[in-house]
Amino acid sequence: MQTYQAYLQQINSYIQDNRFTGAPFELYAPINYTMDMGGKRVRPILTLMACELFGGDLQKALPVATALEVFHNFTLVHDDIMDKAPIRRGQPTVHVKWNPDTAILAGDLMMIKAVELFGLLDEVTLKKCLPLFMKTAAQVCEGQQLDMIFEQQEMVTITDYLHMIELKTAVLLAASLKLGSYIGNGKEQDAQHLYEFGKHIGLAFQLQDDILDVYGNSIEFGKQAGGDIISNKKTFLLIRALELAEGNNLHELNQWIHKKQFNEEEKVLAVKTIYDAVNVRKLAEAQMTFHQQKAFEHLDQVNVQAAAKNAFTSFASYLQQRGS
Amino acid sequence: MQTYQAYLQQINSYIQDNRFTGAPFELYAPINYTMDMGGKRVRPILTLMACELFGGDLQKALPVATALEVFHNFTLVHDDIMDKAPIRRGQPTVHVKWNPDTAILAGDLMMIKAVELFGLLDEVTLKKCLPLFMKTAAQVCEGQQLDMIFEQQEMVTITDYLHMIELKTAVLLAASLKLGSYIGNGKEQDAQHLYEFGKHIGLAFQLQDDILDVYGNSIEFGKQAGGDIISNKKTFLLIRALELAEGNNLHELNQWIHKKQFNEEEKVLAVKTIYDAVNVRKLAEAQMTFHQQKAFEHLDQVNVQAAAKNAFTSFASYLQQRGS
Repeated sequence: MQTYQAYLQQINSYIQDNRFTGAPFELYAPINYTMDMGGKRVRPILTLMACELFGGDLQKALPVATALEVFHNFTLVHDDIMDKAPIRRGQPTVHVKWNPDTAILAGDLMMIKAVELFGLLDEVTLKKCLPLFMKTAAQVCEGQQLDMIFEQQEMVTITDYLHMIELKTAVLLAASLKLGSYIGNGKEQDAQHLYEFGKHIGLAFQLQDDILDVYGNSIEFGKQAGGDIISNKKTFLLIRALELAEGNNLHELNQWIHKKQFNEEEKVLAVKTIYDAVNVRKLAEAQMTFHQQKAFEHLDQVNVQAAAKNAFTSFASYLQQRGS
Repeated sequence: MQTYQAYLQQINSYIQDNRFTGAPFELYAPINYTMDMGGKRVRPILTLMACELFGGDLQKALPVATALEVFHNFTLVHDDIMDKAPIRRGQPTVHVKWNPDTAILAGDLMMIKAVELFGLLDEVTLKKCLPLFMKTAAQVCEGQQLDMIFEQQEMVTITDYLHMIELKTAVLLAASLKLGSYIGNGKEQDAQHLYEFGKHIGLAFQLQDDILDVYGNSIEFGKQAGGDIISNKKTFLLIRALELAEGNNLHELNQWIHKKQFNEEEKVLAVKTIYDAVNVRKLAEAQMTFHQQKAFEHLDQVNVQAAAKNAFTSFASYLQQRGS
């Protein structure tokens, strides 16, 4: 297995060698702009790793690996319109730098270009991979719609929440691994264990994200500390706190949620105090650990030499350390 | 060959038997709403006709035929957001009935579901059909972006305009025929002639649309008469009139284009008078006839018995008579 850096370099070279060209320029420029924003290229790296685990040809996996990055970036372009997000990876989002109409259309074209890259697979592998990709793509849309619904909904359960993050975040990581396994000619059973590994790593990762928003070092984390608290985002912590808080704590928590005008630092501190009182950090960490363990149980069951799996263990820790 | 009604019935049955189901309901409801709006199902019928022309199995063509309708409807859902269109086929558009965010996401899911239907093809046919579909889908996006650019642009040439409508409208009709030919195991040369037939029929159809907007009977046409004139839409007629008008006519035409406040009927009448003075109707009709002739030249060259092609000739006249 190669190092993370080596995989990253191959992905970035492939992306650079296969720029999206076409007319009108106004439509293709946002696509290359988005692809050039960088990021950790987690999904394509997982595809290459899985392909190599079964001794597959990385050259064959590179178009699909890239397709997954293009697809992921497409979802970010459209999500940013819906979330009215002005900044992504430190740069203006597409709908701000250009306009919402161009962002819709450039996103559409990215989705199309992602599928086009699948078209480079041989007949047998294409027939095997395309349905999994399309099913996963549909799930990611379902997850985004659920996320929007939950924003408007008074009560969300932990089960609902875990289902939503599974769809919105985890299944694409899972599918990246399974597609790489298919291209590498891995057995269905092994591919499925890698899928489950990726899914649980994704869930653990999102839970960590929820925890870091409140308890992380904002400089390392790269986001505003307490941003989720300020915006009443229904994270694992808030949902669990609403379930567990009683009496004065519950009353105060609800007051903060419904307050229209407030001092941000004061709100973060007050809600954090309630979180601490009902001990939600520990519960979130337990849930996170549960998914990490599940992930490694599935990795254990992949039928290849144990040493070959080390790269997956380290990549999982790397993800878990760095935040999104 | 079957009748238009028989094909339509098969398409509608397939759509009814394969409703889009899934959760959340809020995401799937707009998709079925859009599919239920009806329409002439031109693209899927062309696919079935082409498949049958080469003796192919219609059951094999039905998922792809439906995919083309789903794709077409996806483009309408997203275009309607961009155009801020309140009504489509007499009903509220998705972004009005729900909201723009749901319309973006439902559109995305429709694109995904269209590709998913291609995944039902056998390995060899999938590998042959998918790249053509994705190339066509990209062209449709390019056409829509060009259309938006032209709206903001002072000068558009006839060449630019014909290129734009070819991408936005004609290539999908063309690809519908070529995909049907592939599924029916038609030879590449014949499939390409049918593609060109469809492309030129599409161009003729759009030119007819431009003419009918000004000279058609608004009740039969189903749109507001002169709508293109009122909104300064850069149709074949306006572009050509701007090229040909001189002196007072040109001055007056430019004045009407730049007027912010005006009586609609007065504007339609005045612009129509200038159109008549420079004879653009005749030029548009000549361009339309040119594409119809080109279409039939290509149809002639498809290597099947002449009688089998009658259905294509009648379907083309049917389209040309009915307007969009």
